[in-house]
Amino acid sequence: MGIPSRTLQYGIFRPHGHAARAGVAAGEHVLDLAALAREGLLPAGEELFSRPSLNAFLARGREVWQECHARLRELVDGGDLPVDTVFPLAEVEPLLPFEVADYVDFYSSLEHATNAGRIFRPQDDPLPPNWRHLPVGYHGRAGTVVVSGTPIVRPCGQFWRQGQAAPEYLPSERVDIELELGVVIGTPSEHGTPVPVERALEHVFGLVLLNDWSARDVQGWETVPLGPFLGKSFATSIGAWITPLEDLMERRVPGAAQDPQPLDYLRTEPMVFDLDLSVSLRSAAMAERGEPPREIVRTSARNVYWSMEQQIAHLTANGASLRTGDLIGSGTISGPERSERGSLLELSWNGEEPFELDGERRSYLQDGDEVILSGDLLSDVSGRIVPSH
Amino acid sequence: MGIPSRTLQYGIFRPHGHAARAGVAAGEHVLDLAALAREGLLPAGEELFSRPSLNAFLARGREVWQECHARLRELVDGGDLPVDTVFPLAEVEPLLPFEVADYVDFYSSLEHATNAGRIFRPQDDPLPPNWRHLPVGYHGRAGTVVVSGTPIVRPCGQFWRQGQAAPEYLPSERVDIELELGVVIGTPSEHGTPVPVERALEHVFGLVLLNDWSARDVQGWETVPLGPFLGKSFATSIGAWITPLEDLMERRVPGAAQDPQPLDYLRTEPMVFDLDLSVSLRSAAMAERGEPPREIVRTSARNVYWSMEQQIAHLTANGASLRTGDLIGSGTISGPERSERGSLLELSWNGEEPFELDGERRSYLQDGDEVILSGDLLSDVSGRIVPSH
Repeated sequence: MGIPSRTLQYGIFRPHGHAARAGVAAGEHVLDLAALAREGLLPAGEELFSRPSLNAFLARGREVWQECHARLRELVDGGDLPVDTVFPLAEVEPLLPFEVADYVDFYSSLEHATNAGRIFRPQDDPLPPNWRHLPVGYHGRAGTVVVSGTPIVRPCGQFWRQGQAAPEYLPSERVDIELELGVVIGTPSEHGTPVPVERALEHVFGLVLLNDWSARDVQGWETVPLGPFLGKSFATSIGAWITPLEDLMERRVPGAAQDPQPLDYLRTEPMVFDLDLSVSLRSAAMAERGEPPREIVRTSARNVYWSMEQQIAHLTANGASLRTGDLIGSGTISGPERSERGSLLELSWNGEEPFELDGERRSYLQDGDEVILSGDLLSDVSGRIVPSH
Repeated sequence: MGIPSRTLQYGIFRPHGHAARAGVAAGEHVLDLAALAREGLLPAGEELFSRPSLNAFLARGREVWQECHARLRELVDGGDLPVDTVFPLAEVEPLLPFEVADYVDFYSSLEHATNAGRIFRPQDDPLPPNWRHLPVGYHGRAGTVVVSGTPIVRPCGQFWRQGQAAPEYLPSERVDIELELGVVIGTPSEHGTPVPVERALEHVFGLVLLNDWSARDVQGWETVPLGPFLGKSFATSIGAWITPLEDLMERRVPGAAQDPQPLDYLRTEPMVFDLDLSVSLRSAAMAERGEPPREIVRTSARNVYWSMEQQIAHLTANGASLRTGDLIGSGTISGPERSERGSLLELSWNGEEPFELDGERRSYLQDGDEVILSGDLLSDVSGRIVPSH
């Protein structure tokens, strides 16, 4: 059968009655890579694909990725696939596509960092002094990265409500989203040796969309002096299907000029991705009425100041190594217009300017809300808020 | 042969000419657990021990740990071990004992947090407002946790030297240590469901000493607003041999009273470990002269305000799951006396009060310095600073 499709995206799925294995989503179908390899149709062995994560394949490096990708494109374009190697996308259960090694989240959108600074530190310069000198980032929790579609339990946490005499432990009242790109690292680097900025791309397998769910009340109370912790660590959702860098290179465009010029180890022409991104939201009431999700944010992945290569060079500048399966978030992507703000924190100005959603008012997420991140050439990320236990 | 020893510690080692496998350090010897299991001498299968990490064993839970431990103690005490299952400790190469899942570092010593606050924020209350309400912590880099004995390459990084017009990228001039306990998580918890404080111990396999190497100049410049990142992520050293909780229970003693009383989810009698801890340092010149390391810090693991159980309850209070192999640092342990300060930051008051080391003056670490953390019932952690490439 033939499958017309421009993008081929890599993931892990469990065909009905079979063990989890690697697959490639192509349009409305999923190709079973373990089965294709077993039949000798791929330039790599079945053992790379008959596993419940892509890590073994990711570790192999660009040459293997490119050979497999080219062959898969031939197979898809040639329309000559054995029937039992193809499944309808709608009928497969996608799983987390890779075992996350370390998860690092940056803070690289100028508009987002400026908005966050204005909201949280209105008396100060909105950008911290280091912001234009280095890509600010921190480590998140790798063990709670989940695949698109996983329900998100409203986190409980400790925070101090205005007017109360002491902090309390309660279900968060400010559950938020963050619209991000996630970089999936394929090949590792050596511990003790920084990755030069001009070689950073070699380590990148591909991109996913990423929703860095955040509990703003918990985050606000815990964050000084060591940064975000439980306000973030309850869940991070990523797309089920990774788009290989291969298929995204033609969307790379120069980013905004950087001033001051970065230090040598970060110096390069920053390249960003010209990909439209959006966030849609559907409340429980909308779902009951049979209404589709409504778009509440539309922006572009161009709105990132520090490029992926600069983030990788910085992350390893102290000799820290990359591992196969490292996940690197861009930070919330926000553009200059109000409609381009990639978090509800910004969209509602921390609750001071609630927005309207089909007759309801929203600042932060309500139980039953379903959030969908979408982007050009990237697999959707969805998640619905379920009540705290 | 008989091996008299009170503590049995678990690790991974590579006997000459063989694949890495699990072992137990008992005094001056290491027992090969894979070989003992193969000979039917352990109440668990060889497949748990013939791997290059302890994770499979850690995942099995307390019942299996206790059965194996009791049997090993019998074997060691009985002195009836097949000769080819025992190696001299001095001749084996210990490896990282487990694959680190997520690494979280707390900040739970009152004296350390107070000292750090006085040094970095002299104009403010030394303790941040949240400190007595919750165990402050953050995620570190799991991929750069290394085993004792691994050389530590002096990290380069971006920082702003006093009197300079702009930040620079240079070898760190303030490489420091942090004396910590590390908790090794055995059994996982369910994502979405907090671990109650009274059940936290069930998940703990054992303890190691942990040196949270820190580059203070890098940390200082990068840390606002998202916390420590590259100032910490270049390396974290842990002991090669894990002491099981089993063998440490008799050293548990009540910790200091907590005021204010913690919220319900953290409320318990905080128990700490009555274990003496020390830091020794040997400069390159001392090594050349054949001198032994000199003790520069001596304190107690009692100097922790938030207990291990409270840290675990807090870490999962938002529904974040524990995974087998999670590593939880206590935070630097400092006592009230100057000689009890668990970091050079505190010992030298950020360079303002250098200390003397065998005729040399020290604030932070010099190339060639070797640092050794030691503690009652715990395996040493050593590391030597080698120059930046």
